Amino acid sequence: MRVGLDIGGTKIDAVAIDDDGAPIESLRLASGFGDLAVLTNAAEALARLRDATGHDFESIGVGIPGLVDPSTGRVRHAVNLGFDDVDFGHDLSALTGVPVSVENDVNAAALGAYHLMGLDGPVAYLNLGTGLAAGIVLDGRLWRGARGVSGEIGHIPIDPSGFVCPCGQRGCLETIASGSAIARQWPTGAEHPAQALFAAADAGDPEARRIRTALATGVAAAVRILVLTVDVESVVIGGGLSHVGPPLLECVRDVLDDWAAQSEFLASLDLPERIRLLPEGLSVAAVGAAMLGRPESVLRA
Amino acid sequence: MRVGLDIGGTKIDAVAIDDDGAPIESLRLASGFGDLAVLTNAAEALARLRDATGHDFESIGVGIPGLVDPSTGRVRHAVNLGFDDVDFGHDLSALTGVPVSVENDVNAAALGAYHLMGLDGPVAYLNLGTGLAAGIVLDGRLWRGARGVSGEIGHIPIDPSGFVCPCGQRGCLETIASGSAIARQWPTGAEHPAQALFAAADAGDPEARRIRTALATGVAAAVRILVLTVDVESVVIGGGLSHVGPPLLECVRDVLDDWAAQSEFLASLDLPERIRLLPEGLSVAAVGAAMLGRPESVLRA
Repeated sequence: MRVGLDIGGTKIDAVAIDDDGAPIESLRLASGFGDLAVLTNAAEALARLRDATGHDFESIGVGIPGLVDPSTGRVRHAVNLGFDDVDFGHDLSALTGVPVSVENDVNAAALGAYHLMGLDGPVAYLNLGTGLAAGIVLDGRLWRGARGVSGEIGHIPIDPSGFVCPCGQRGCLETIASGSAIARQWPTGAEHPAQALFAAADAGDPEARRIRTALATGVAAAVRILVLTVDVESVVIGGGLSHVGPPLLECVRDVLDDWAAQSEFLASLDLPERIRLLPEGLSVAAVGAAMLGRPESVLRA
Repeated sequence: MRVGLDIGGTKIDAVAIDDDGAPIESLRLASGFGDLAVLTNAAEALARLRDATGHDFESIGVGIPGLVDPSTGRVRHAVNLGFDDVDFGHDLSALTGVPVSVENDVNAAALGAYHLMGLDGPVAYLNLGTGLAAGIVLDGRLWRGARGVSGEIGHIPIDPSGFVCPCGQRGCLETIASGSAIARQWPTGAEHPAQALFAAADAGDPEARRIRTALATGVAAAVRILVLTVDVESVVIGGGLSHVGPPLLECVRDVLDDWAAQSEFLASLDLPERIRLLPEGLSVAAVGAAMLGRPESVLRA
């Protein structure tokens, strides 16, 4: 049995999987703030999973937002968790006596989505959260790239006269197609800003419609880049914005259909058919993290 | 022993390699025009290689410009060779009695460059010919993608107000960073238009300088896309424009250095250090084609 933890800014999702990768037990705890709190809560989640299943774990995998070095388990810039530079993998392994793999949460989610959605062929998981980034699964295995920046497509510029991005470039995908892009252009006190934006656009607000169209165009451009560069068969759209649901997918498909009408070449790529939404309620990052313990889950660079 | 043919618009490069992939014999013939002429000349090249080496071949690989279906060996739109839809692999295999793999020439060159240049880690071969396209090698193996469009980055738009591309989109990389981009913007009777453009830019012609800067910016944008999406360790720049030599590399590095000065994030990617020119005189497409016969040379999608 293997276990995976999806450690987010507010909660830890913990899942135990059997040898076939099927989830057999899961639970959720608050993640806490600061490295000691997060480590303690992670260890607590593991202890409870062990009690619930009655089994020890062969391996622990962790998906975590931040700059992760999977070779050492070191985590930097985990801003939402309140720590900057922690040997998280080492520390959690010392606490539990079990080998720990650490991965950034988007890569873990890509691996989990591939397995839980029963996908075939190469897959990109496009995470539309505060930022925009993708995880890539080739030959059923996670592709991290030479230096772990594979899928960082949020910082590909597509418009020289676009918005300035915090990364220092201009016109990055992330400046129009992410939670931060919505927050900057459509400030709202609503609990779900993307849903609020879509509702205002549906109600006819011209500025909301403009921002929504730009968002859909950015997502469509991300899909085009993923297909023309890596030629993934499917792009799974997940992350906070994916909770908008089918209306998001429709807007993106509208853009892709418009493009296909103007370009036979693009039409031949079947982009509208290649995208799908991450279904609600799947613990993709936790299950993907659990799978990291299997050596065959990662494609070596 | 395996053999590879790089079938171009004017010549066939034929190379025999030993079991370690080292080239042991090579020759060059005119390719001819039309499917029968090309097939006859390909068979002639193979017969001469067999005579020269005194060995039969275990496999034949073919790199060819056109739309290739590697699973069937069918070739479409081989405009420069004067045929549109030919079961080239099947026909050549019937002629020779040896199994034939067919691949587009850029993918074949990527595999050949990886081996002949002794590269390590994931590699993209960026071909700057009439068009712009890349071949990608991961884990030492050719990555074709789900439907064989991996690396078709020439048709990623980077400027909504850019030139209209023959593909129907606007602002594609290929409209500023390719031989066709130079031909359209800097028409010349010179035998080597790219060299003529660089000479005019060096002599201070403002229009030539503008076109050269746009070219370098397009190549730099291609490198950024390849690294942020696939995270290749190296990008090898080949194709007709690469004969400009070190001045081309310098111009691209100048753009990448400018970008790095404006963005810490980009600076952290070390893009200027990741690019290199294909050395002159390497038969990368022919050697790569020969390697296609080895099952371990291709990463299955």
